Amino acid sequence: MATEYDESIILFGASGDLAKRKLYPSLFKLFLRGNLKNHFAIIGVSRTNWSDSEYQKIIKDILIRNENIINNKLFKFDLLDEFVKHCSYCPLDLTNHHNYINLKRKIQSKEKVFNIPSKRIFYLSIAPNLFSTVSNYLKSEQLLSNTGQNKLVIEKPFGTDYKSATHLNDQLNEVFNENEIYRIDHYLGKEMVHNIQAVRFSNTIIESLWNNHYIDNIQITLSEKIGIENRANYYDKAGALRDMVQSHILQIAAQLAMDQPVTFSDEDIRVEKVKALHALRIYKDYEVNKYFVRGQYAANNGCKAYRDEKNIPANSNTNTFVAGKLLFDNNRWLGVPFYIRTGKRLNDKFTRIDVTFKKPLIDLFNFTSNNYTHQNFLNPNILTIFVEPKYGFSLTLNTMTVKQEMNMKLSPINLNFYQDTITSNKFPDAYERLIHDILKGDQTNFASWKEISYSWKFIDVIQKYWDKKEPIFPNYIPGSMGPASADELLKQDNRKWVYRIN
Amino acid sequence: MATEYDESIILFGASGDLAKRKLYPSLFKLFLRGNLKNHFAIIGVSRTNWSDSEYQKIIKDILIRNENIINNKLFKFDLLDEFVKHCSYCPLDLTNHHNYINLKRKIQSKEKVFNIPSKRIFYLSIAPNLFSTVSNYLKSEQLLSNTGQNKLVIEKPFGTDYKSATHLNDQLNEVFNENEIYRIDHYLGKEMVHNIQAVRFSNTIIESLWNNHYIDNIQITLSEKIGIENRANYYDKAGALRDMVQSHILQIAAQLAMDQPVTFSDEDIRVEKVKALHALRIYKDYEVNKYFVRGQYAANNGCKAYRDEKNIPANSNTNTFVAGKLLFDNNRWLGVPFYIRTGKRLNDKFTRIDVTFKKPLIDLFNFTSNNYTHQNFLNPNILTIFVEPKYGFSLTLNTMTVKQEMNMKLSPINLNFYQDTITSNKFPDAYERLIHDILKGDQTNFASWKEISYSWKFIDVIQKYWDKKEPIFPNYIPGSMGPASADELLKQDNRKWVYRIN
Repeated sequence: MATEYDESIILFGASGDLAKRKLYPSLFKLFLRGNLKNHFAIIGVSRTNWSDSEYQKIIKDILIRNENIINNKLFKFDLLDEFVKHCSYCPLDLTNHHNYINLKRKIQSKEKVFNIPSKRIFYLSIAPNLFSTVSNYLKSEQLLSNTGQNKLVIEKPFGTDYKSATHLNDQLNEVFNENEIYRIDHYLGKEMVHNIQAVRFSNTIIESLWNNHYIDNIQITLSEKIGIENRANYYDKAGALRDMVQSHILQIAAQLAMDQPVTFSDEDIRVEKVKALHALRIYKDYEVNKYFVRGQYAANNGCKAYRDEKNIPANSNTNTFVAGKLLFDNNRWLGVPFYIRTGKRLNDKFTRIDVTFKKPLIDLFNFTSNNYTHQNFLNPNILTIFVEPKYGFSLTLNTMTVKQEMNMKLSPINLNFYQDTITSNKFPDAYERLIHDILKGDQTNFASWKEISYSWKFIDVIQKYWDKKEPIFPNYIPGSMGPASADELLKQDNRKWVYRIN
Repeated sequence: MATEYDESIILFGASGDLAKRKLYPSLFKLFLRGNLKNHFAIIGVSRTNWSDSEYQKIIKDILIRNENIINNKLFKFDLLDEFVKHCSYCPLDLTNHHNYINLKRKIQSKEKVFNIPSKRIFYLSIAPNLFSTVSNYLKSEQLLSNTGQNKLVIEKPFGTDYKSATHLNDQLNEVFNENEIYRIDHYLGKEMVHNIQAVRFSNTIIESLWNNHYIDNIQITLSEKIGIENRANYYDKAGALRDMVQSHILQIAAQLAMDQPVTFSDEDIRVEKVKALHALRIYKDYEVNKYFVRGQYAANNGCKAYRDEKNIPANSNTNTFVAGKLLFDNNRWLGVPFYIRTGKRLNDKFTRIDVTFKKPLIDLFNFTSNNYTHQNFLNPNILTIFVEPKYGFSLTLNTMTVKQEMNMKLSPINLNFYQDTITSNKFPDAYERLIHDILKGDQTNFASWKEISYSWKFIDVIQKYWDKKEPIFPNYIPGSMGPASADELLKQDNRKWVYRIN
């Protein structure tokens, strides 16, 4: 039996792209599951002048065109009508505090209609520069519940550097406590990212080896095939380092690096993630070149160069690719580099984690006591966690194979587990899961302020150094895995990317 | 390029079943590979009165009817004729020393014809009670090479208890040195058994966990579906304990338990296997019932009961099933039971090894600090090595799955690697590989006398105790996995067989 939650969800940015693509489908699926049932209200807020019934029709249209919804075995057309009855709309100019009184009335009226105990979720799917404006008005115009609960949900980016993030957080903290703030990082809603901790702490054979005695290096790759699509304005200001590394990649790294929490509660897990990110070595500016490389894509095979994309300045120095080395200065990880990379217009779309174990010290199979050359031809064991699009694990083992000539040769084989597509499609979408967590009040899969602050401190040094030095862009072609410097980064450590195309 | 070996192979038991099923096909395949090419002779020996040309025709007939041969991509009909040119025959009464002079002349003549440097392999595929007779006559009638090399190959069983094995070994040692004696245990020629050491010592993630800190128990199952077929006379005297446990199972256990050898030479590996078998705890007779159980099959679904099989006494107490617990008293294994079982008329035909790792000490997923119940619902990690008929590995991991109701549940998944059948069929057959090892002079895959002697010391206590106590037979039905007592054996340790059918 699904737990029913009784909350009002006030959705700022109700006419936006994210709302249409992700939020309405996710909310409806939670309704199909029964997590939203009788006592809930969805109140859309944006500048557009819609009536309640127009808004309801828009939502119905969106849901009806969504294949995931239509193919859901719980779906019935009647349920659509029932769902949109709970949806209403309030036009609002976010910067005009006089408008908020209407919203307040709407919330109160819906709470009465649906018998909701004044528990309010304020979901800000809006431009980041308006986060604190809205937050302040929610307080000054008394939209917060005094008797029930309030939750603030904000999409990334959370600031553009440590200073702006701190300022934003201070502003939000004047209205909301840390335990009321849910900072969305949708990677944390993905099945496999979510799974990292479970896999680590429920398997003896994983966690017993999860340290610098046994692991040689860890690689995290978030590879995108697409370019910047229609996000030029945002993206050209952000770049891959801020857009992907500060958020998704450091969050994944923290889950890989963290120590075992005392319990699996959100609080205890956050303690460990914060500890991990606190141990992340912050580089000196003169070290940036040694540990991080950046790239920007050129033109190739009908793909425009980044600098030729619509709304991108012809002299833009924004990075569309980043590779780097993370070092955690603690007992578990000292000496084990975490190599990370992400970029647009790369060879393929996927996210994967490759954990390379150390080789056995002695290669018995190329060693006789009177011929001791210290040469080790063994392949290392590699555990690959496939995050998306395919979901699964692969483990490389050495075994002996017999060749035609009867000589024994060691060859690597792969033990595989892949979730079949039918099953994967049944997984709740990242947003569905994250909204469920918000309803439930579970902050595990949301970045805490301390995590964000350590992330920005790490990112700032690199970004500021890069801002001062003119790069030689473009430096990689679409369809590659980034610039040559990304390979050099590992080559200088006598290593290679586990996933490579040449 | 295959190495060519120049030896004479004197095959005692040339008209026997093993020779026909395994030895001629294996020798011919080594010929196809080029390991036997110009300078070799195969001299068949048995009581039957064949001419050389009759013998050659018999071998040709055997090979032509063998699908593995005909489908071998190196096979050509011309090659058959070329091969049998190297085959000749000498009728011989093994117990009549006068006959050996003919054999001696035949060997010398063939060595001249094929220009073989007097390197002789005496392959005894004959009744075990004749091993020492033949061995003695080889010496007294001067069939051993003085200038080249001599090798003695003997099929199991090597004795029927410690005393008889010691006696046999002493007899053989009067003629052959230990490093000239190749004791065949065809399980050691199987791809996967052979592979155990390679997998252990070439993989950090395996060997680092291969001890009592991480492993809970190891299970070895050699399950046969067939009954005793036409082996009544031998089998009823031997039983499963002597036939399977003393040889195959203890050899597999030794490979699983052994420490890392200094080099991968046959000598160094034997040192470690001997050490392992020396550490195998020999039970007191009053402990036998606690650690070992035996069984004999009843009738079921058209299968005869063992006691009703042809040539089996109606009151036979021979065990057709054995299950037991091995304990190695050393630093690596103290506290880790090796459960073993083997039997005839069981549910299926397979050999597998199941390595169950210890669970994580804390089940974080059923543990909150204010609800500490010590309950651990985690599944252990299990590494399964599939020896036959399918060849491969499986590793059980816990991962999180999301159920319809959005609660997180840990479920075990399997990472698998199976060799496809096409590839497996290309593997050299166990005998092909073992004969190749004999030609090469590599004793790795043959049991040494010390291994045999420790095995018999262990087996003797159990067999002697059983011989004194009347069992209640029959006690299991065909198609089961043996008697209930085999399950009880693990149940008393709060464990279960990983492979079970109910």
